[in-house]
Amino acid sequence: MRRFVIGSARNLIESSRQKYQFERSILSSSYRFLSSSPAADSPSSSSSSSTMAHLVSLSTINPKVIECEYAVRGEIVTLAQILYCNIGNPQSLGQQPITFFREVLALCDHPAILDKSETQGLFSADSIERAWQILDQIPGRATGAYSHSQGIKGLRDTIAAGIEVRDGFPADPNDIFLTDGASPAVHMMMQLLIRSEKDGILCPIPQYPLYSASIALHGGTLVPYYLDEATGWGLEVSELKKQLETSRSKGITVRALVVINPGNPTGQVLAEENQKAIVEFCKQEGLVLLADEVYQENVYVPEKKFHSFKKVSRSMGYGEKDIALVSFQSVSKGYYGECGKRGGYMEVTGFGVDVREQIYKVASVNLCSNISGQILASLVMSPPKVGDESYESYSAERDGILSSLARRAKTLEDAFNKLEGVTCNKAEGAMYLFPRIDLPEKAIKAAEAAKKAPDAYYCQRLLAATGIVLVPGSGFGQVPGTWHFRCTILPQEEKIPAIVTRLTDFHKSFMDEFRG
Amino acid sequence: MRRFVIGSARNLIESSRQKYQFERSILSSSYRFLSSSPAADSPSSSSSSSTMAHLVSLSTINPKVIECEYAVRGEIVTLAQILYCNIGNPQSLGQQPITFFREVLALCDHPAILDKSETQGLFSADSIERAWQILDQIPGRATGAYSHSQGIKGLRDTIAAGIEVRDGFPADPNDIFLTDGASPAVHMMMQLLIRSEKDGILCPIPQYPLYSASIALHGGTLVPYYLDEATGWGLEVSELKKQLETSRSKGITVRALVVINPGNPTGQVLAEENQKAIVEFCKQEGLVLLADEVYQENVYVPEKKFHSFKKVSRSMGYGEKDIALVSFQSVSKGYYGECGKRGGYMEVTGFGVDVREQIYKVASVNLCSNISGQILASLVMSPPKVGDESYESYSAERDGILSSLARRAKTLEDAFNKLEGVTCNKAEGAMYLFPRIDLPEKAIKAAEAAKKAPDAYYCQRLLAATGIVLVPGSGFGQVPGTWHFRCTILPQEEKIPAIVTRLTDFHKSFMDEFRG
Repeated sequence: MRRFVIGSARNLIESSRQKYQFERSILSSSYRFLSSSPAADSPSSSSSSSTMAHLVSLSTINPKVIECEYAVRGEIVTLAQILYCNIGNPQSLGQQPITFFREVLALCDHPAILDKSETQGLFSADSIERAWQILDQIPGRATGAYSHSQGIKGLRDTIAAGIEVRDGFPADPNDIFLTDGASPAVHMMMQLLIRSEKDGILCPIPQYPLYSASIALHGGTLVPYYLDEATGWGLEVSELKKQLETSRSKGITVRALVVINPGNPTGQVLAEENQKAIVEFCKQEGLVLLADEVYQENVYVPEKKFHSFKKVSRSMGYGEKDIALVSFQSVSKGYYGECGKRGGYMEVTGFGVDVREQIYKVASVNLCSNISGQILASLVMSPPKVGDESYESYSAERDGILSSLARRAKTLEDAFNKLEGVTCNKAEGAMYLFPRIDLPEKAIKAAEAAKKAPDAYYCQRLLAATGIVLVPGSGFGQVPGTWHFRCTILPQEEKIPAIVTRLTDFHKSFMDEFRG
Repeated sequence: MRRFVIGSARNLIESSRQKYQFERSILSSSYRFLSSSPAADSPSSSSSSSTMAHLVSLSTINPKVIECEYAVRGEIVTLAQILYCNIGNPQSLGQQPITFFREVLALCDHPAILDKSETQGLFSADSIERAWQILDQIPGRATGAYSHSQGIKGLRDTIAAGIEVRDGFPADPNDIFLTDGASPAVHMMMQLLIRSEKDGILCPIPQYPLYSASIALHGGTLVPYYLDEATGWGLEVSELKKQLETSRSKGITVRALVVINPGNPTGQVLAEENQKAIVEFCKQEGLVLLADEVYQENVYVPEKKFHSFKKVSRSMGYGEKDIALVSFQSVSKGYYGECGKRGGYMEVTGFGVDVREQIYKVASVNLCSNISGQILASLVMSPPKVGDESYESYSAERDGILSSLARRAKTLEDAFNKLEGVTCNKAEGAMYLFPRIDLPEKAIKAAEAAKKAPDAYYCQRLLAATGIVLVPGSGFGQVPGTWHFRCTILPQEEKIPAIVTRLTDFHKSFMDEFRG
């Protein structure tokens, strides 16, 4: 383990570097300090000094790019190099990958070792078997070749079979588009549906900023609907109707409804009855239902269960001709948390073959998604089964991660609810809590003086005092006059008590400082 | 090797499937037949029958999507499941990956085996050493975590160092944006520069259709400049000036010049003097130079050498303030041909920090590119060196591939030049030949009757008769009234003679059929 010792030493140096980084950063909101090394800022500062001289300026670039905002990696996150609770990035916080998945990926990356005797000693029998199966699904076993633009057909067969097992309704591999994570799939659908600023997309508020960013980049209009914090971030169809009518009266053509279930940043899991009402609403109003279901494995309360919108709509007897539905899934979330692999898919149903050809064409312009991500997407939809050599270790790893996440969610929820002026709904699912904080008037004044949103000011003070990063609610949208922050439940369990203590101490002193 | 035998058997079945596929396909230009299994078309036909009933129709989607065309995977390529010479996809044709690169990728995918004794027997010492180095560059060794939006800093350091070795001029890791292949990088720059249809991008004709597709998707105007076939696809600054003035007189603001060097589909390698004139032109006219340099390793003639536009502009004394230059590189091309890994980067210089922040923000919306692709991009810019255990096998693999590509290019070039009415310029670099074909009047009439462009008609007849796929020149653009096709030089060397024979026999019978 020599190298691991050296490694840890290097990581110590790295984190001290990053500390330096962070101290520099706290003084600045510029992207100059994003890199993880102090050397990073010198060239930028040189460019900075010469900005005036440059050919391309903010006044001559695409204004849609300038309008686009992306809170999760915005200002607070430029300070985030050392920080812990801002992004749904489990493995950056020490979560270990699922061994079986990584074994299969390694074998598919270097198939030359599959026939070597040493390989039997290093890899499980079923990971070797699975690697052979996958290689046989890839024409010519060419893991380094562009695939079909929708992804390797055999992997889409596996994913469709996994969806059928999950839902109890048929799934068609030709409806599956494999993508580099869910984000490019969302962009593809926005690009398809948005013709001009007169086209609107209904999005939850609070929302994951990918949606506002993508709608802005494609020049459409975000039509907000508010989740009801009082009822545990409930999604009321009456609110959908109200916002739809308001936007229509303004001449907006609403094309689609985005639903994030389980919720990000809000963590609620929709009840099946609620989902049925949403499906009915989309059918009646002729809206495409864009279902962000990337947290489908992340449900922490026994009284709630994940139901895909496809299952719900099919159980209502609605098929291809009744509703246009796109379900997004990713390898970045769940218990696997393989964010860096950039794998995911969308299942596209209820679109005619002519429109699907257009989606196919757009997918083709980027040729295909990365093959390792494609393979991983097939693995998460078809993990080891009872009887497979890896099954016990696999299920122990999976259950260990999910039960620990449930405990962390509860601990943090309780801790937030103990803070003066803070109320926090239950994290039923996903990876986040989104507590509401009532800030004293003085604190709001101090934020104004610092030219910050009050919740951003609170988060920045917390960061400076404790090194804990939260994302201000203003980045996700919230009822005007209310303030929130998003906190992931991802720090390793042994670190949670320290985080709670630091948070509690900071909050008390912050409130003492500003209490009227 | 039991499994490999089974594998080949399955591949035979697969290709017979695909033959069936192909026979179905030849009857249709629909994307229905894209999948590699006959099962594929049934659901599409069901959707097809129900198209009228669907909510979203061609008349209600983004017209920019409909306008976008992508020849390389267009109609001919829907027939391409069994075919050979259409896409620059080396490993799909049997090119083997570079062992060292795959060893490092496998070890980074499953670092748990790095300390196991069996690993020494399976992997080279320097691949193990390199894997450790890379892991130590990744904060927390988290290969499954989202990275910095520009890519892992340590890998960008390696890439910048590789660029310095290549060019002899400094490169800054903060100018590097790692991307899922070159295509997303090109989209990012088009998205940044194009504000409306009044913004133009100068593109070579013939061009790689990524550029026309991306400009169409972003709603800009492609301003064509013609490469001079008579001078080996020469790029004349006089032609650039002429087209620039013409488009300006039409009220188009030309933002950037795209140069593909070595050329795709044309295979020429620009002379350094020519590049200097191009740099001077961009500086004088205030154009961003978008340099597609993904074929920088693919030069086959001793009299030509690749020079990056950054090296050329720096050697002219031009720095950050003088010219805005973006260089695109990919792991998909070169001698490595790792298309499926979706790795690449762009080096962005001459932009102010404020605009770079905007590029960073757009990169952030997709979080990061896939980590395996990032690692591979660092490996191709920093391969094994003399003295490393892998160096000999690595350089043997590399030189074997490159020298074979050079021989294949020459053989195919000579074969095309022997065909009646066909002239073919030298493939100095890249992976393609783009011969010109003078078709008899009768053939052009037959094409009109079949509602096809004459070169598309020729390619489809060739495909039906021989199973060889070429891409019609009409997909790349060509001087009106001239006809071409693109042929990759990628089929394995032992297959080239058969291809030449089948091509020659087909061409003779085609000309006999239509000769006046």
